[in-house]
Amino acid sequence: MNTAAIYHRPDSEFAYLYQAGVMHLRLRTAHADIAKVSLLAGDPYLMDSEKWDQKPVAMHRGLSTDLYDFWTAEVTTTHNRLAYGFQITGVDGTQIFYGDQGCYPVAQAKKSYFKMPYLHEIDRFKAPEWVKQTVWYQIFPERFANGDPSNDPEGSLPWSAQSPKAQDFYGGDLQGVLDHLDDLVDLGINGLYFCPIFKAHSNHKYDTIDYLEIDPSFGDKALFRKLVAECHQRGIKVMLDAVFNHLGDQSPQWQDVLQKGAASQYADWFHIHEFPVSYQAGRNFEDATDLTYEVFATTPHMPKLNTANPEVQDYLLKVARYWIEEFDIDAWRLDVANEVDHHFWKKFRQVCDAAKPDFYILGEIWHSSQSWLNGDEFSAVMNYAYTDAILDYFVKKEIPLNKMVSELNNQLMLYRDQTNQVQFNVLDSHDTARLLTAAQGNRDLMRQVMAFTYLQPGVPCLYYGDEYGMTGGNDPDCRKCLVWDADQQDLELYQFVKALIAVRKQYQPILSEGQLKWSIKESAPDVLKMTRILGNKKLTAIFNTGQTTVSLTQTQPVILSQQITLQEQQVQMAPNGFILY
Amino acid sequence: MNTAAIYHRPDSEFAYLYQAGVMHLRLRTAHADIAKVSLLAGDPYLMDSEKWDQKPVAMHRGLSTDLYDFWTAEVTTTHNRLAYGFQITGVDGTQIFYGDQGCYPVAQAKKSYFKMPYLHEIDRFKAPEWVKQTVWYQIFPERFANGDPSNDPEGSLPWSAQSPKAQDFYGGDLQGVLDHLDDLVDLGINGLYFCPIFKAHSNHKYDTIDYLEIDPSFGDKALFRKLVAECHQRGIKVMLDAVFNHLGDQSPQWQDVLQKGAASQYADWFHIHEFPVSYQAGRNFEDATDLTYEVFATTPHMPKLNTANPEVQDYLLKVARYWIEEFDIDAWRLDVANEVDHHFWKKFRQVCDAAKPDFYILGEIWHSSQSWLNGDEFSAVMNYAYTDAILDYFVKKEIPLNKMVSELNNQLMLYRDQTNQVQFNVLDSHDTARLLTAAQGNRDLMRQVMAFTYLQPGVPCLYYGDEYGMTGGNDPDCRKCLVWDADQQDLELYQFVKALIAVRKQYQPILSEGQLKWSIKESAPDVLKMTRILGNKKLTAIFNTGQTTVSLTQTQPVILSQQITLQEQQVQMAPNGFILY
Repeated sequence: MNTAAIYHRPDSEFAYLYQAGVMHLRLRTAHADIAKVSLLAGDPYLMDSEKWDQKPVAMHRGLSTDLYDFWTAEVTTTHNRLAYGFQITGVDGTQIFYGDQGCYPVAQAKKSYFKMPYLHEIDRFKAPEWVKQTVWYQIFPERFANGDPSNDPEGSLPWSAQSPKAQDFYGGDLQGVLDHLDDLVDLGINGLYFCPIFKAHSNHKYDTIDYLEIDPSFGDKALFRKLVAECHQRGIKVMLDAVFNHLGDQSPQWQDVLQKGAASQYADWFHIHEFPVSYQAGRNFEDATDLTYEVFATTPHMPKLNTANPEVQDYLLKVARYWIEEFDIDAWRLDVANEVDHHFWKKFRQVCDAAKPDFYILGEIWHSSQSWLNGDEFSAVMNYAYTDAILDYFVKKEIPLNKMVSELNNQLMLYRDQTNQVQFNVLDSHDTARLLTAAQGNRDLMRQVMAFTYLQPGVPCLYYGDEYGMTGGNDPDCRKCLVWDADQQDLELYQFVKALIAVRKQYQPILSEGQLKWSIKESAPDVLKMTRILGNKKLTAIFNTGQTTVSLTQTQPVILSQQITLQEQQVQMAPNGFILY
Repeated sequence: MNTAAIYHRPDSEFAYLYQAGVMHLRLRTAHADIAKVSLLAGDPYLMDSEKWDQKPVAMHRGLSTDLYDFWTAEVTTTHNRLAYGFQITGVDGTQIFYGDQGCYPVAQAKKSYFKMPYLHEIDRFKAPEWVKQTVWYQIFPERFANGDPSNDPEGSLPWSAQSPKAQDFYGGDLQGVLDHLDDLVDLGINGLYFCPIFKAHSNHKYDTIDYLEIDPSFGDKALFRKLVAECHQRGIKVMLDAVFNHLGDQSPQWQDVLQKGAASQYADWFHIHEFPVSYQAGRNFEDATDLTYEVFATTPHMPKLNTANPEVQDYLLKVARYWIEEFDIDAWRLDVANEVDHHFWKKFRQVCDAAKPDFYILGEIWHSSQSWLNGDEFSAVMNYAYTDAILDYFVKKEIPLNKMVSELNNQLMLYRDQTNQVQFNVLDSHDTARLLTAAQGNRDLMRQVMAFTYLQPGVPCLYYGDEYGMTGGNDPDCRKCLVWDADQQDLELYQFVKALIAVRKQYQPILSEGQLKWSIKESAPDVLKMTRILGNKKLTAIFNTGQTTVSLTQTQPVILSQQITLQEQQVQMAPNGFILY
């Protein structure tokens, strides 16, 4: 037995309260090394009494990666407290007990039980239920629609499908969004994620000047209030982008520092090593190694905020509260969330929770994120690590199918089940090439990848215009104007996306909460079967990712792609095909 | 290579800020499986540029357990941010890269670096420096000394060395402590840990009636203020016991619930499932499975507090603040800390930090405690898991020497280095048998165990009276009165303890911060050599735990036991002997 591969960590994603009174436990073992795992569990205060119930409960072999199997169990407790250990039988017949002090012979079990000393509802990771029902739509406001030419920035270019340059303006605004709300309702969208809308210098608005003002080229507060109200009337939730890692260099705070140096009242709002700061107006995107202050990435015009300064905390928390309380937004997306301190995010979470029940907090983190997802900071992160594995297999063809499944399972085992259910799955965004472009224009492949992603745990987000077949390489090419002329839109693709969104919303809660099973047959190594199971409900999807048509025996599809031919007893599935039943 | 045994977890005890600007990294691999580990690290924003510095840095092979080797590295960063991965060479010659998405061929490294996105000083685990210099002394106030017979509880028994019964009173009090402060100074003590002193019903005072009053049989607030001042004058820190998991059944809050049921203003201060509560006065220590309210353990007279209730939080936080601000205490010891919610302890930490700089928070937790020791809750826990391994080997003879070393190393690798330096090492307490009794009266063994423990990372705590050779089995026998008649005291033992404490304080910071190395020779399997190294300083201790005398070539001891015979070129060490040089 590979005892060194066995891992468990109490009070983490391996042992946590799932619902009130219901605990989930996980155990990691080396792949294909263990025949059986039994959970031994009971009340820690009864361990030395006759009432200690050691009846072993068989654990379920859940997801696997190339290296590991994960075993799971659901446990209810009498007094909200649990002592537990694992009795592990190897495929080689060895038996050991694994507890808080490692591996022991089974007879010495009692010595070292793991403890979940008391299960507190207040410490439970909670995510809002509504998020599971949501299909998000990401809007880059400067390029979605121009509803009010009167507020266009000076020098705005005519609205067009051409590739934008980094500094171009086109006049997109909130009125444009309002004008097209019913189009989004038609598509099935029920969540809008707005890239920053606060007063800022650039077209992307990630260089904030004032977090308490709507950028005048987008509209004003009255218009935004109306927009939120119209969204809510249509059952659409609204998420804004909070850029709290750094300020823009045009902000009054940074300008004050430039003028007054160490004497500025904002001198401690940033991370400044030396005065005067080595800032030069107009200098951009160069290597920041000679800067005397900390910045976002290597960008001199985005000075990093000192979120350990109580004044900065008070200011940003006021901002967080303001847009919730005054404008009734439903969620914050946190830009560069991983570079802001935990201390601040814990306060931020408390402010949001107090301001509105069931508020959703989404952190931008591209890597493993356990320490932000323990229940007292974020609800979810932008799940790039998950969707990257999907793109690496389906689109970039860089990894084999079993590696993709391994990586997806690996990601799912990094977080609690209730976290996985609300993770934010993006196939493209304002920071990456568009999906259709990444797929080299292959619409069949695009449809297959989208279908695969929309059937995953976590919530999908559609990048504006993907539904009409918009293309674009990396930033800024992915930020083209959405062309509203139907002649230039792929309306067939639109209908597909609309149908997929309907399926995603219809098959709840199974698509959010259902257990996930993968199956790849040796005889058909390019055909991936995925099953979701919840109670006595079951959904199965099959994807042909190979080069040849395959035959399946199935009927009654829920949704299927054009590559499918339904015959009497059989289904013929050409390459890039998929079916859900 | 056993790739499945490789483990790392960013933003945890495996990757953390140790001092401002200095990160510590750890990697776990299977024992004796890996020949070399190199760290590849650099600024995450330079990864795609020419400036990305991939020069591999060799990691140090640190502590080992029976299953694992732990590799360590110290890293400084330029912009407080780090992307990193591990290049691992097996003893079988295999080479892999291990990063945020698992194990890859070395050539695919860049894909999956771990990230420490930004190292925030505010998030760093900080422990007060003074704790490293401290030797604690635990006082059970009812039994340490009776300095004021006028406040003795009714029916108090005459002060004596007899075995107490669970409900006996003997009249010990704070004046008794004040009277003997200079004795403690003589012994070298510079930290006092008081079992509860607040108004309560029992002799142990863990059933609080009023957290804002000193128990009248112990004294009053004026006396306590004087005691703290006298301690501080002598360089002695003061730690009080906060019993916040539960209240006593004699408390006005619980009594109000008994009287008014669901209508009581305190109805939500507890975890009550049904009114009227199934409490019966005088009922004690029975099985609590039929109780209609949650209690500590199975003890009906200790109703559990609902620390999720903001009123309860406000009350307990007021208590926490009050004794710091009004009486200048230096530390809180938190009773049953593991059964109170994290949410509350995070607030508690903030209150203590705000009330006094360098405050020490010690949680009573007997099992692995990572989730309380991330820097925003406790400074340390009572390190039973560590000292249990010591007792299991030296005293109970239940595990072999290599298993003890494995368990000690395992415990040290659960926590950050700065946590290990302030962990609270207890060999006995009011909850366990006394050390001399556990050692079956063998004073030589007692001295050896104490010497071993006082040379460990973490801070030692002496249980009152151990220095005079007091005996006692499990509670209540371990709570005898300290007899101050010198004829009944083991003054030879006292001199040894005094010398040991002096050594412990003299050899700082090496005993707190020094790297730890173990050595056991196959030719002498009962002889344990332990080395502590810090910079160019080195301390070595050797313990003969076998049955025969052994010869060593050493000179210039710092402290040694009676079992040592120093000869010209040699040291003869009889069983139970030890030497430090």
